[in-house]
Formats: sequence, C-alpha cells, structure tokens
Amino acid sequence: MSSGNWEEISSKKRADLLSLIPGEYRLSSAPPESQLNISTWPRESGWFTERELEITETTASAIVKKIASREWTAEEVTRAFCKRAAAAHQLTNCLSEIFFEDGIKQAKALDDHLQKTGEVVGPLHGLPISLKDNFNVTGFDSTVGFTSLVGKPASYNATLVDLLEKLGAVRYCKTNVPTAMMIAETVNNTFGRTVNPLNRKLTSGGSSGGESALIAFGGSPLGVGTDIGGSLRIPAACTGIFTIRPSFGRFTTQRCTSGLAGQEAVTSVNGPMAKTLEDVVFYSKTVVDAQPWTVDPKCVPIPWRSVEPKPKLKIAVIWNDGIVTPTPPVARAMKETVEKLKNAGHEVVEWDPALHATALQYLAGMFVADGGKSIKALLAPTGEPVRPEMAMYKDAPELGVFDMWRLQLARSELQRQYLEQWRSYEDLDAILSPTTPYASVENGKFRYVGYTGVYNVMDYSAVTFPCGVVADKEKDQYPVDYKPLGEVCKTTHDDYNAELVHGMPVGLQLVAQRFEEEKVLAMTAMVLEAIRR
Amino acid sequence: MSSGNWEEISSKKRADLLSLIPGEYRLSSAPPESQLNISTWPRESGWFTERELEITETTASAIVKKIASREWTAEEVTRAFCKRAAAAHQLTNCLSEIFFEDGIKQAKALDDHLQKTGEVVGPLHGLPISLKDNFNVTGFDSTVGFTSLVGKPASYNATLVDLLEKLGAVRYCKTNVPTAMMIAETVNNTFGRTVNPLNRKLTSGGSSGGESALIAFGGSPLGVGTDIGGSLRIPAACTGIFTIRPSFGRFTTQRCTSGLAGQEAVTSVNGPMAKTLEDVVFYSKTVVDAQPWTVDPKCVPIPWRSVEPKPKLKIAVIWNDGIVTPTPPVARAMKETVEKLKNAGHEVVEWDPALHATALQYLAGMFVADGGKSIKALLAPTGEPVRPEMAMYKDAPELGVFDMWRLQLARSELQRQYLEQWRSYEDLDAILSPTTPYASVENGKFRYVGYTGVYNVMDYSAVTFPCGVVADKEKDQYPVDYKPLGEVCKTTHDDYNAELVHGMPVGLQLVAQRFEEEKVLAMTAMVLEAIRR
Repeated sequence: MSSGNWEEISSKKRADLLSLIPGEYRLSSAPPESQLNISTWPRESGWFTERELEITETTASAIVKKIASREWTAEEVTRAFCKRAAAAHQLTNCLSEIFFEDGIKQAKALDDHLQKTGEVVGPLHGLPISLKDNFNVTGFDSTVGFTSLVGKPASYNATLVDLLEKLGAVRYCKTNVPTAMMIAETVNNTFGRTVNPLNRKLTSGGSSGGESALIAFGGSPLGVGTDIGGSLRIPAACTGIFTIRPSFGRFTTQRCTSGLAGQEAVTSVNGPMAKTLEDVVFYSKTVVDAQPWTVDPKCVPIPWRSVEPKPKLKIAVIWNDGIVTPTPPVARAMKETVEKLKNAGHEVVEWDPALHATALQYLAGMFVADGGKSIKALLAPTGEPVRPEMAMYKDAPELGVFDMWRLQLARSELQRQYLEQWRSYEDLDAILSPTTPYASVENGKFRYVGYTGVYNVMDYSAVTFPCGVVADKEKDQYPVDYKPLGEVCKTTHDDYNAELVHGMPVGLQLVAQRFEEEKVLAMTAMVLEAIRR
Repeated sequence: MSSGNWEEISSKKRADLLSLIPGEYRLSSAPPESQLNISTWPRESGWFTERELEITETTASAIVKKIASREWTAEEVTRAFCKRAAAAHQLTNCLSEIFFEDGIKQAKALDDHLQKTGEVVGPLHGLPISLKDNFNVTGFDSTVGFTSLVGKPASYNATLVDLLEKLGAVRYCKTNVPTAMMIAETVNNTFGRTVNPLNRKLTSGGSSGGESALIAFGGSPLGVGTDIGGSLRIPAACTGIFTIRPSFGRFTTQRCTSGLAGQEAVTSVNGPMAKTLEDVVFYSKTVVDAQPWTVDPKCVPIPWRSVEPKPKLKIAVIWNDGIVTPTPPVARAMKETVEKLKNAGHEVVEWDPALHATALQYLAGMFVADGGKSIKALLAPTGEPVRPEMAMYKDAPELGVFDMWRLQLARSELQRQYLEQWRSYEDLDAILSPTTPYASVENGKFRYVGYTGVYNVMDYSAVTFPCGVVADKEKDQYPVDYKPLGEVCKTTHDDYNAELVHGMPVGLQLVAQRFEEEKVLAMTAMVLEAIRR
C-alpha cells in the first residue's frame, strides 16, 4: 500500500487532507505569518457569522442543552465547528483526518431523531467531539504520524468511538500527533508540525497537541487525547485548557492504534480536553455512566461516584522535582497559586520528590525496552528516517524478558513506596505540581516530561488546569543565584525566552491517587475557587 | 547463606521443620501406609479430645462468633488447630513453615484484649488462618520450594499478612507448594511432596496443595492460596473444598514471593480456601471491607457490593474444552449438575470453547517468556536440578521485549473476543465448567490445567465448589467410542484409574466476568441450592 518514498507519501497525504476542506471553508486571506497569536483571528477576521462565533464559543455542556431544547440544531452546531476546525487546520496544521461530511450526516440524523421522537439519543446528542489520530474510525487512517500507515484505513472503530456514537456525539475530524505519539510536541514526517494558536512560534505540546491547538482555537468544543507520559496534560498546559489523566481502566482504550503496540508496563490512557473544568467533568461522568467495562475487559466496573472532599484540603506541593527547575513563569504560578490556596484556608505541605528520578528512569526504560523495534518496523517500509527528537529509540538495546520482569518488579516496588510516602502524611488529599517546566516553549525546544511522567508510572489521576497566571516578561526572570540541577535543567534555562512566552497561560497539575478521578476533579473546582476569590 | 549441596539443605530444612512440632504434637502411632484416606484418622485415633475435634470441625464464620461471644478462647482454638496441623503435616507433608508459638502468643494477646476491652480487634478476631508459603512473614523463609531460598527469612510481612493481623487473624503456619508454584501438584526439592488426605496415593493438587491438604484434613479452618493457572481451584477440586479465584486487584498480592518475579502478562492472585462457601464469602467480604487499595496501589477501590442475581440464572456449559476430555467422574458430575440446574429452573446453554486453545498457548508462552531464567537463577546457587514437571522452563528460549509486546497485544485481543462471545448470549450470568479433567489423580500424573488457565488469561472471577458427586468405579468408565483429542487427552485417558479415585469428590468451576466476585459467590450458593434440592 504505502510503498515508495516517504516524502512523496507525506506530500500526497497533506494535499489529500487539505482537499477534504470544502471550498467555502478555505481561507482566502490568512493572517500574516508575523501574527503569532491567531486565536483572536476568528473574531477579528469577520470570516464567521455571529451565530457561528456564538456556537463555537459555547461550552460542550451548554451545547448539548441547547440542542436538546432545540434552540440549536446538531447540524448547525456541527457545521460551525467544521468551519472553525478548517480554519484551525489552515492556521496551525492541527488535523490528521477530516470527515466533515460524515459529521454533518450524523448530525442531521440526530436532528431527525429528536424531531420525530422528542428524545435525544443520549447525553452527548449532537455534540461534535474531535479525536486524536490514534482512535480508529472505520474507513480512515490512523497513521500516528507514520507514512507507512498512510492509506491503511481502519476496518473497525475504537471501542470509545462506538461508545461516543451511542451517546449521541458527532465525529468530524481527527487531530495530529507526533511520530508514534512519543514526543512532547506535535510533529511527524507525515503531516509536519502543529503550532500553538496562542503563539505560532511555540508548541501546542504533545502528543495530544493537534487536539490542544484545535480546542484552544475554538475548532472543537471537546476532544479526546491520550497520555502515557504527559500527552494530555502537556498540551493542555501549553494552550491554557483543561484535561484529566484518568487511571487505566476508567475510560476504554480498546482497539486504538499505538506506536508501541502491546507495551503494558506503563499504560496509555485517554481523556477529555476542553476549555472548562465543567466540560471535563461532564464528559468523564458520561463515559463512565455508559459502563465501558461491559464492552472492554480491561475496564474496571467503578461507577461514577459522588464525592465531597473535605472543605479544607491538605495539599503537598512540588516546587521543584530536583531534576529540572521550572522556568520563571511556572515558578511564579506555583507560588501565587499556593498563596491563594493558603488564603482560602487550605493546608499546604511539601512533597519530597526523592523517588521521581528513579520513576523517570524506569519510564524511559519501559518506552525503549523493545530496542525501538516497534518504531523502526513502522519507519522501515517507506524509508522514513527516525526524527531527531526520537534518538533514544534508535540507539536503545532491546531488553530480554528476564530483564523486563526485573524492571516491572522494581517499578511495582516504587509504586508501593510512593503510596507509602503519601500515607506518611495524615489525610493528604492531593499533590500540586507544575505540569511542565514551561509556559509552553519554542517549537523544537520541549525537553522534559518528568513532572507528568512520574504519574504515568504511578497511574494516579491528575488534572491539568490553567491557574490564571500568565507569563510576564517583566516579572519572570530566573533568580540571580540559579544553579542548574543538571544538563536538561541548564538547557531549559538557556532556552527560556521571556519575550516569546510573554502572555502565555501557565497550566498546573493537581494529582490524586489511583481511581480518584471524581475527587481530583472536585478538588480542582475548589482550587479554582481559591484562585478566583 | 544457602551454599553447599541442595540435598543437604533440603534434609536439614525438613528436619528443622519437624523439630518445630512440639513433642506433645508428635504422632507416636501413625496410621499404616496402606491407609490411603487419613482424613478420618482424627476421629478414629482418639488422639484428639472431643473439644479439639469440635473446634477443628467448626467453620471459620462460626469460630469467630464463638470467640467473640467468649464461648471459646482464641488460645484454645489456636492450640487445637496447631495440634491438628501438626498431625496433618506428619501424615501429608503439607507445611513449609511452623510458628505455632507465635500463633499462641498472638491468640493470648487477643484474648487479653477482648477480656479487657470487651471488644474484638476485628472481624477475624482469633481465627487461625494458614498461609501459602509465598506469603512473606517477617523472620520466616518463603522458599517457594527452592533450596536456594532456605535460610533467607523475610524482613517484612506481605501486605495481606499485615492486613489479616489487623483484622484479628492468628497466623501459625505456612503451607507447602511446588517449585516456583508452577506445577499443578505440590512437590519440590526442598520439602518433597504433599499428598491428598482423602487418598494419599493421589495429589492434593497444586500449587496451593499444602493448603488444600491441611484444610481438607481439618488442620486449618481457612487458608490463603494463590492462583496463576489454577493454583487455588485445582487443589480445592482435588480435596473437595471451596475457593474463589478473584480478579487481580480485588485482594492484595503485594510483597509476596514469586517464582516468576515481575511477570505481569498474566497476573497471580490470591484467595481463600475453606470447607464451606459461607467461609469463602466471609473472608472475601472482610478483606475487601478492609480497603486493601489504601495500602496496595495495585488494588482497585471497589467496595464489597451486595448483589442479587436473577432467580433463574442463564449458565453456559463447557462439557469439553476440545483439548482434553474430562475423565468419567468429572463428565458425570457435569451431567448430573446440569440436570439439577435445569430441574431448578435455570437456563442452560452451551459454550463453544473455540478460543481456549489459543488462550492456553499464550498462557504457556507467558510463563516461559524469560526462557526460564528466573527459575534457573533460583536453582543455580545450590545446584538444584530442574524438576521433570518443569521441563518447559529448561528448554524455552527467552523472548525479546518486542515479541513479548506482540504476545501481550494478541492476549488483549483474545480477551476482547472472549467478552464479545459472552455478550453474544443475551444476559449470560456464568459459565459452568470442570475445574480439572480429574477427580484428583495419582501423584505425578496431573497433566492438564487448561480448564482453569483460560480464566487466568481472562482474569475472570471463578469459584470452585464440590458438586456433591463422588467418583464411582462402577459408574465411571470412558465411553466405548472415546477418541483422544490429542496427546494429553490420550495420556489422561490412559492414566485414569477408576479403582484409585473411587470415592473422591468432584469440584466444578463456576465462572463470572472480571470483578464479579460477589456475583459468582452468590450464584454458587444458588447452584448448591439446586444441587441439594
């Protein structure tokens, strides 16, 4: 299928993708390249009707209500998002598959159903939901960035795709990812790079950075991304939106495409990304209420529970993980947020990140345990080169299963120790930590996923939320006595560009224990309240 | 520590173990070797007082009530079980570690506590619980059958051991296992072979066959075993007792010793073994109520739920898995049980075991994926030979991680297909299947774990229960038109000895889906009701 030169395949796939954007959605006049923040363009340009702007700037939870009450039709909502997604793609290169036609058809059918029966088909009736590229959708590619997977359409839907359809969601596009979804930015040899709509010189993060760019631009009310080392949380932080990394088994990951298929020592999970916490809660509850464990044997039959965290939380803070010092905007965001938490009466203690370095060493070991064979097997058919960001997969020696078992044993012991440390505090509710050392960073310069990756090793539930602090070139300078903690810390310091990140939102991370999705979401609402007081 | 010749270490360890049996518990006159069923000996011999017999023939659930009401003391209960366990060991070789003194000390402390406070420390107050050898207990070995692990006492308790102690249980002994717990009988180079108290020429099963022998003899009211291919269910079936194989994450397996440490592609679980279903339910509820997930990050926070299965169950039957035809007593037990279920109004359908062969092939592949290195590393220090039952570990080539990932991927797809098959029946409640092809079998001749192993691959909840049918040499002959399904089927047929298994109970298996422990136990009660009508 995908024989021949990878560059040809890539050019053709990009052109094919563009050709799926209907003529009326093609931008005749784009903002100049010098305009870095193009998130303001939809309102500035006059390209959208007021109605389209209103629809695409409404939250997911509100959209479903307006469709259910027949104030809006699913069709007009879908068309508005298709149009804004088309613009997003042309300005940030955020899509990987486009099926607007199918989406509109689905939306019409939903409108008909509501018209005829007076009933919605489910709680997501008419809501357009964008999907990360690895969610298989029958008839469309899931390249996860590899040219060798171009022109190999899925013959079945991912289990989540079927489930969302049953709940009434409309699917209309898939979003770009980095090669194998194993880079913290969104760049691959098939589609190229997705950029941040808040500043096109900066990354929208990765690996769910097609999603974050699309959502931050307003091209999707809610999208589903995945996370094996920070791939939901990093792009959410880079673009100022919300997400939750659930524990494995809460949402279904069945029948998706992976760059490291069969790797289970650290589990990939998926979760919603959206502009409001309310939407993240709405999606999470809706998916769990649909009992994914009845169709996916890896899902755990824990119903969505109502929780009421104690009114004054006890939160342990990670100011610095001892490996990479957060850049100044993030350090300040942590400080200001902690002050606000204290002012709201919450108890703040400190978390000693002594176990983090080991966790991250194990995580890296798990990713490359096959000696990069999985990646190489996907690159080889088209002669596609290993991207420089993925050098670790090129050179890693393959482990034998005996050594893999030892690694797994060590990881389990570390998980035990981490929980023991948690329990050493009396009634600790959460950990507050940076999501990344950056308030985003220049394209190509994202170098450290340690603040998120540790919770993939632990499989803890974690929310990333914009904390209200934005980078400020006046305020945000490294302290004069800054000393690098190591090489990556130094590079992070040297790459820091106060001018360029000025105005970027900072996303922090609130972490709870395994399977505490309800609690971590409820606690995030309390943190937001403390911030907004 | 364990330098020198493995045979010397073994002899010394066996002698040391025997020396831990107090003089008054040594048998001066044992039944003759020709007496195969020694389970009747405690009542016949006059060696026990009436009170000791009464105590050791009382169920766990009743014992805790009698201690709580101060009808019995924990001390006298513990002493009675120590004495009977001592006899069990001398007649079946079922113990691996003896700490009667500690148990009696614990029991006295519990009696004091109750005396002083009027309160029990927990729901297991004063209940002696025997533990399979792999549960680490500070200060005692966990050899799992390896001479190289003799004289290497644990420096910490398994998490379950701590949890049971908090609940009030008394620990007094650990029980024998096969080498690495990877044989379906109980035989190793350290302690030798455990035999079946119902017939000493037959196996008590494995790998929790020290437990099953001890419990069947009356030397423990309740024990905890483990299961990675049938190791709870097979010994329960061989000795006519009850057990549940829970899904992974329901009970804690943290900090135990394993023969295949770090192996996770198929998960080892542990569960209770007892003479009544009620006791299995009592233990299961009690352990889950103690919220093991607060101390073990691999446990899933699913509280013990009350379930009420529909009054008429829909049960799919596996008469024959297409690989090994059950021996005649088991075939008849299945037939008679199904008749009784139908008579009680339950709906019986058939299960096509088409996926089983693949599941078992994957299971075997997972066990030997490290090329037997884990086993060999445990044998090497003392020059201990590979037991003939474990030839597969000797010759297996080690997989690389890339191939392991492929195997895991294939296993996940098979799990999906198995659930899909389950869902293809409308409202299927359970599968009824043989536990093994045997109503036990001559020592050394247990050859097939396929009826249990498939549910380790699926991680389904499964109960083994004595179905009331016992082998009958008059009734139980292979049909004249028997044709072997393959080599193991033929050997099973050829090894069948109607005379020898005459009178042995048959244990069948009731299987529900993942995390349906409450339901499968409730359904087993319904099946027992149908049987006893």
